[in-house]
Amino acid sequence: SREMAKSTQLIDNEVFRAYATYTVIVLLKMMLMSLITAYFRITRKAFVNPEDTASFGKGESAKKYLRTDPDVERVRRGHLNDLENIVPFVGIGLLYALSGPELSTALLHFRIFTGARILHTFAYLIPLPQPGRGLSWAVGYSVTFSMAYKVLKTAWLL
Amino acid sequence: SREMAKSTQLIDNEVFRAYATYTVIVLLKMMLMSLITAYFRITRKAFVNPEDTASFGKGESAKKYLRTDPDVERVRRGHLNDLENIVPFVGIGLLYALSGPELSTALLHFRIFTGARILHTFAYLIPLPQPGRGLSWAVGYSVTFSMAYKVLKTAWLL
Amino acid sequence: SREMAKSTQLIDNEVFRAYATYTVIVLLKMMLMSLITAYFRITRKAFVNPEDTASFGKGESAKKYLRTDPDVERVRRGHLNDLENIVPFVGIGLLYALSGPELSTALLHFRIFTGARILHTFAYLIPLPQPGRGLSWAVGYSVTFSMAYKVLKTAWLL
Repeated sequence: SREMAKSTQLIDNEVFRAYATYTVIVLLKMMLMSLITAYFRITRKAFVNPEDTASFGKGESAKKYLRTDPDVERVRRGHLNDLENIVPFVGIGLLYALSGPELSTALLHFRIFTGARILHTFAYLIPLPQPGRGLSWAVGYSVTFSMAYKVLKTAWLL
Repeated sequence: SREMAKSTQLIDNEVFRAYATYTVIVLLKMMLMSLITAYFRITRKAFVNPEDTASFGKGESAKKYLRTDPDVERVRRGHLNDLENIVPFVGIGLLYALSGPELSTALLHFRIFTGARILHTFAYLIPLPQPGRGLSWAVGYSVTFSMAYKVLKTAWLL
Repeated sequence: SREMAKSTQLIDNEVFRAYATYTVIVLLKMMLMSLITAYFRITRKAFVNPEDTASFGKGESAKKYLRTDPDVERVRRGHLNDLENIVPFVGIGLLYALSGPELSTALLHFRIFTGARILHTFAYLIPLPQPGRGLSWAVGYSVTFSMAYKVLKTAWLL
């Protein structure tokens, strides 16, 4: 149908396809943090909701599993850092993809951001000594900033 | 005008209209968590910023309201879980809606996700015994994963 | 090329250009919170990851910098509040921009939201006495709600 055809116009555009691919990859990577948190909560037996420890028994025997664990907290900080950095990438990246960049330039931005965020996760979880995590964060941040500059240059209407 | 006409093309597409409807519903649901947090902070008198307790008096009499409350913390965890799961839905769902799915398939994805997240909120706040909350979380997660697969199959350009 | 032309259609629309401009501004404002957090962590010497304090020496001499600081925590709360409120604005605002509003009405929504969130950050970081922060939060919240209503009125397909 005519409308279906229209809906697929954007997805036919190569820059938009690249944006779609990398956005899905970084969002799936972010979603993975939930599974890693669950993994550490279960293996470390460290929960926050009383109803989550009910299977370990009642009363005091279950209560001891309501505690924080350094590994769990580390994954949660990595997850929050993802939210803080991947949300701007997804929002600004969409507008950047629609601002008519060269495919090669766009790919460069998307690839570096995605690589930097994957590195950031490894740096956080292993953990690598600083400035490993700091640098990978700064690279992703700079890429988003560069895309923001292009969007503002193209779209500026205050 | 010609430009106005163009801006409404996407919103004329039925899959996109369904995406818009369900995205607004889940984002409003997420925004509701702020009001529930405020409600519990005020009724439980549990605040985190000193300036928020100024109306209760000065010095020690106000300071005792700077404390954490289990109900407030529970709502806040539900809110953060919304952010972690609704952000991927909004981002991946947009690309999915543009990847040309059948309307019936798209509606199935959007409806199950939205239902699962509403259930998740009830399961968290009541709280329901596990695996109520865990299952509702897993259903929403799986729907987002299924949409991600369709986007990558359609758009893949690395 | 034909495809490049298509990709720039949206960005040629004035309402969409306004959306792009204000979205980039509020997302950059949100990203600024990371830099302010880093600034306070370094000047207050208050870190959360052991590997971040390695440059201050080994063992107990570095361990004392693994602590929470009221100023750091305040910025972090402001950052999280940004996530909770700017994510709905970016998502609902995109759909609103595509729902064919008048440019003047759209600009009013985008300008008030952006002004309210900038005020909210100042109110949180200075901090201003209440209800300064509360009101700036409520104004941004109401603007997003108004856009959500317009989207649902235009797109409703359940």
